[in-house]
Parts: sequence; structure tokens; C-alpha cells
Amino acid sequence: MARVIVDVMPKPEILDPQGKAVHGALPRLGYHAVTDVRQGKRFELEVEVADEATLAEVHALAGTLLSNPVIEDYSVRVDQ
Amino acid sequence: MARVIVDVMPKPEILDPQGKAVHGALPRLGYHAVTDVRQGKRFELEVEVADEATLAEVHALAGTLLSNPVIEDYSVRVDQ
Repeated sequence: MARVIVDVMPKPEILDPQGKAVHGALPRLGYHAVTDVRQGKRFELEVEVADEATLAEVHALAGTLLSNPVIEDYSVRVDQ
Repeated sequence: MARVIVDVMPKPEILDPQGKAVHGALPRLGYHAVTDVRQGKRFELEVEVADEATLAEVHALAGTLLSNPVIEDYSVRVDQ
């Protein structure tokens, strides 16, 4: 078995209200070291083997089912 | 500036309805290589410098504001 990680983040030019909400709460809670926050999704996909065909399938589903290509970017990596 | 990544995932023993929903949709969409899916959150935190004090603050806010320690685990790493 292998694990493939798909990270999905809002495109840089897209407003990230969730990230802004978290960032806005930090000073009130006494946290001052963080200058910006962006929030996205993380998927852990279990596969039999992380070969080329499987990774091609993961890219296909990441770009359709797991992310919205209009407002999000995704990245795929095999978890060592 | 440095970027610190906080990944938040449901604890293994906790039911993950979002992951199950994604996994359930895969065969209908023609994807068969993925045997399980878990979904969590990814935070990208911008900081001035990723020193010990800053990372201690990130751990503190990750365990309180960014995750629910009863049902979620988090991990912190500096993005190279």
C-alpha cells in the first residue's frame, strides 16, 4: 500500500475568507507571530501502488472531484 | 519571511464522512485505483522567521484554534 497526498489551496488571487477569519482572531487570542493565514484542504489517498497509472488517475480526480480548477490549485505527492 | 504548514486530519478512530463521501463517488466517476480517502485541513501560515518561539506559538494555536484535539490530530512543518 502507498499513500498519496493531495493538497488543495485557494488560488493566490482568490479571496480566502476562512484564512482571513483565522488570521483576524489571532491577536485577540494573544498570537502575534503569524502575518498571514491561508486555509485549504488535505486529502490522504490510500492506493495499492503509487505507479504512473495510479498517479495519473490521482491527478485526474484531484483536478475534477477534489478541487475546483477555477478557484483552487492542487498538488500531488507520494507520502514516503 | 517563512511559511509554516499545519496539517489537520481526523484521528484514525474517528469517522470521516467527507472522506467516505469522496471515496464512495470514485467508482461512479470511473476511478478505481484509490482504496481509501481521508479529508482534512491544510493551513499555510506566513511568519517573519521560523524560530523556536514562533514554532512554539504555531503549535499552541494549531492545538487550540486550528484543530479540535478531541477528534483531530495536527502536524507542523516549515515549508522549505
